[in-house]
Amino acid sequence: MSGYTANREDHLRRLRRIEGQVRGLQRMVDEDKYCIDILTQVSAADHALRSFALSLLEEHMAHCVADAAAKGGAEADSKVKEATDAIARLVRS
Amino acid sequence: MSGYTANREDHLRRLRRIEGQVRGLQRMVDEDKYCIDILTQVSAADHALRSFALSLLEEHMAHCVADAAAKGGAEADSKVKEATDAIARLVRS
Amino acid sequence: MSGYTANREDHLRRLRRIEGQVRGLQRMVDEDKYCIDILTQVSAADHALRSFALSLLEEHMAHCVADAAAKGGAEADSKVKEATDAIARLVRS
Amino acid sequence: MSGYTANREDHLRRLRRIEGQVRGLQRMVDEDKYCIDILTQVSAADHALRSFALSLLEEHMAHCVADAAAKGGAEADSKVKEATDAIARLVRS
Repeated sequence: MSGYTANREDHLRRLRRIEGQVRGLQRMVDEDKYCIDILTQVSAADHALRSFALSLLEEHMAHCVADAAAKGGAEADSKVKEATDAIARLVRS
Repeated sequence: MSGYTANREDHLRRLRRIEGQVRGLQRMVDEDKYCIDILTQVSAADHALRSFALSLLEEHMAHCVADAAAKGGAEADSKVKEATDAIARLVRS
Repeated sequence: MSGYTANREDHLRRLRRIEGQVRGLQRMVDEDKYCIDILTQVSAADHALRSFALSLLEEHMAHCVADAAAKGGAEADSKVKEATDAIARLVRS
Repeated sequence: MSGYTANREDHLRRLRRIEGQVRGLQRMVDEDKYCIDILTQVSAADHALRSFALSLLEEHMAHCVADAAAKGGAEADSKVKEATDAIARLVRS
């Protein structure tokens, strides 16, 4: 990710918000909130985490994968393989 | 969730671990770690969050849904509908 | 599912439509359609398959799980466990 | 996908197998099989469909996206955006 400082601030902001959501979940469990309401908040946090992953992935593809592809050869192939493996982990997590 | 104190401790432990994972992600972003390594950790946190949701759901079905079902009638139907809506949100988050 | 004849017709209709979507995918591959357009159709078929699963699950919970819950005991517990295992497989497929 | 004939045969084989799974589901519904057994087969078909999508995506990234990236400019950016949009649809389907 080296050098994408503007995005780094945006990434940190998103992650801090997700951390706040997870702390909110702890409060809900602690206060014996209704399961379904907790589950709704879990889905929201999960959605935020996956959106973060997708934006990180887009950035990675636009920079690292595209740079490697521009050079071609084995490096390009291995970057594409690495990215699709990461996508598969995300789709199945 | 009222009254499931033993599970509450387990739930809080899981959520604190997930909070730690999200803070770990902030450190990785802050230290400019490699995207793919960050994505691997996002998938791990996401997996933990979904596992938490599934265990909460099992507990909810074993108690609230089963209790309502035992009584029958409209209350039972509405509890089942509420639970399947929560499952749909989770599947699609 | 025994006896839910009205729903059976609806289920079969949904599955036949999904079968049509999968055959449409074969045509697209055969005609060398653009990858992204094929992927869009895969997502649509996947969405339809998951919606089918969710409606089947709702029906199952409203009947089998609720009936077992009304009787209580070990049978109720095992039905809930069985349903949440099926949900977990769906969430992770 | 133009020109990837070897892969085309593999793609068609996968899709025909998925079509067979969907027809098997119709048989199960028609024969009033147990919901949970049907759901297990739905998850298997869903897994196969997502695996197909992932392999199509890998191929697309290795060819179309990499070629566009090698040329650079607006075309490269738009190919990356298009691919990540397709990934997002898949993650959320």
